[in-house]
Amino acid sequence: MKKSVLEVLNGHRQTVPPVWMMRQAGRYLPEYRAVREKAGSFLKLCFTPELAAEVTLQPVRRFGFDAAILFSDILVIPHALGRTVTFVEGEGPRLDPLKDALAVGKLKKVADGSVLAPIYETVRLVKAALPANTTLIGFCGAPWTVATYMVAGHGTTDQAPARLFAYQQPEAFAQMIDILVEASVTYLVGQFEAGVEAVQIFDTWAGVLPADEFERWCIAPTQKIVAGVRARVPGAKIIGFPRGAGFGLPVYVERTGVDAVSLDWSIDRDFAREKIQSRVPVQGNLDPLALRAGGAALDRAADNVMHAFSPKPFIFNLGHGILPDTPIAHVEQMLKRVRGN
Amino acid sequence: MKKSVLEVLNGHRQTVPPVWMMRQAGRYLPEYRAVREKAGSFLKLCFTPELAAEVTLQPVRRFGFDAAILFSDILVIPHALGRTVTFVEGEGPRLDPLKDALAVGKLKKVADGSVLAPIYETVRLVKAALPANTTLIGFCGAPWTVATYMVAGHGTTDQAPARLFAYQQPEAFAQMIDILVEASVTYLVGQFEAGVEAVQIFDTWAGVLPADEFERWCIAPTQKIVAGVRARVPGAKIIGFPRGAGFGLPVYVERTGVDAVSLDWSIDRDFAREKIQSRVPVQGNLDPLALRAGGAALDRAADNVMHAFSPKPFIFNLGHGILPDTPIAHVEQMLKRVRGN
Repeated sequence: MKKSVLEVLNGHRQTVPPVWMMRQAGRYLPEYRAVREKAGSFLKLCFTPELAAEVTLQPVRRFGFDAAILFSDILVIPHALGRTVTFVEGEGPRLDPLKDALAVGKLKKVADGSVLAPIYETVRLVKAALPANTTLIGFCGAPWTVATYMVAGHGTTDQAPARLFAYQQPEAFAQMIDILVEASVTYLVGQFEAGVEAVQIFDTWAGVLPADEFERWCIAPTQKIVAGVRARVPGAKIIGFPRGAGFGLPVYVERTGVDAVSLDWSIDRDFAREKIQSRVPVQGNLDPLALRAGGAALDRAADNVMHAFSPKPFIFNLGHGILPDTPIAHVEQMLKRVRGN
Repeated sequence: MKKSVLEVLNGHRQTVPPVWMMRQAGRYLPEYRAVREKAGSFLKLCFTPELAAEVTLQPVRRFGFDAAILFSDILVIPHALGRTVTFVEGEGPRLDPLKDALAVGKLKKVADGSVLAPIYETVRLVKAALPANTTLIGFCGAPWTVATYMVAGHGTTDQAPARLFAYQQPEAFAQMIDILVEASVTYLVGQFEAGVEAVQIFDTWAGVLPADEFERWCIAPTQKIVAGVRARVPGAKIIGFPRGAGFGLPVYVERTGVDAVSLDWSIDRDFAREKIQSRVPVQGNLDPLALRAGGAALDRAADNVMHAFSPKPFIFNLGHGILPDTPIAHVEQMLKRVRGN
């Protein structure tokens, strides 16, 4: 039985594009909220294979998505590097902010394998339970994006703390990025060995970097991760998602060697078609707020995305994670619109 | 005596580019903080001509900037339309959120002239005190950006409330935008009549709009404002600043008819030079965090901006407002780098 997502990643357009959603295992689902409550803390959910596997599978069961994405968090890597990570309900992650070169010097050089082991077990459990035509996707955060949290100690609107750190202490920042590259390679290889069939590298905050910095902190580290993973997992399928990269996307594709690119919702569609989809398959682009809005606005937005990208290899997805207050009926409406049934 | 900023806006390159900074009258200046404290509230400062004129003039006195920008706020327009606007220290603006078509229907159709009168008086006071070679720039918020605050009731990281409103109630949203267009025309014409020599339209949140929405909520209203102002002030010089517009910038320039464009710091410089500066003068692009960082990072960032844009008509400026914690010595360093003295 063919896996439509893998088919697209191999460059074969599907008549009906495969569909999955970023954050599809999430708070908009009552069955997710029930497991989340049972787990107690968010990290407990990430690190308990039975529970993480269950929430990974929930949206596939409910909606028949063509891919499952491992339920985890990009901050398990700082956690495995010895940083304290907690999640404050309704406020997001909290880490010990990493202030200077001295603190960078104290980072573990290698991610603690015992921290990551439960996640590989989650992958094995999901793989065993997944329908034969559903692709299992793993992921990690890109070093730049992970670093923005490690430096600030929490989510920020403009990533100013990390950008300032990179301007003022570029050597120490580069050292931190190198450590994250190594840890990410180990982590993604571990996921492949446990059974994922593709991975996505989330660079959520790539868009705040000026061009020179984008080259240095987004493209170069991603290139190293792709090469590092493929050296140990030949032919590993890798999707890049440098959100907000815009003009930088063509160079990103060329230099990093990713197999496909996920598109945010603000990209110019003509540009994406001409400069990106002409080289590699693309994924995404639906505005999560159009999904939240539903109705005619959702149909129109989905049609625009399909019109632009479905003539060539394309995976239908959002341009960012689904919003927690999105009604389930809107997801059903979207699937009907895309699949025509 | 020639005004170098106006010269550039008229298409004449200056050997040394004129310099000013967005938010140059602001918290990084001790003399600003002293006046701000005296005023009591932020809006009181905006609406007291003697004080607003004083803070407008302060950075020109201290640094010899080539332009003064009127000290005011984009939210004086909702205020003049009858909405309650307050500023909470350290948290930013608070407005009654505008929830639905009914609330839009209750907006004043015309801005209250008596609310705006003190601002015109500020312009007159500044104009009378300004050196002969310094250009006086007025401004307003673009309708889209002002609407994001009116709908949400406060600043947001993703402007989701306004975007959702626009998706779900496009007619009511269009009605609000039309009211803002009219009020903005009145307001900018009032500023020109009081003595400003150019204006800038700040569309700070243009970057979150997908392409179709960018056309409808950013380009079309800005085009109407430009045409409306020029109908009453022939040849009025207008700078557009659709921050984060990226790919949309060339169409923005073509359709709105602005005289110049302010560039954020994440724009691709080759693109901006080829597609924008080939048509109109440009301004801006220095990363405010590079200015905050200082040292070698600032010199390099300033050099990159100069290298890219100074061969053609260019006004040196930041890609966004100066950060409140920026050391004054860094501003001096930047001016030395640009002016070479």
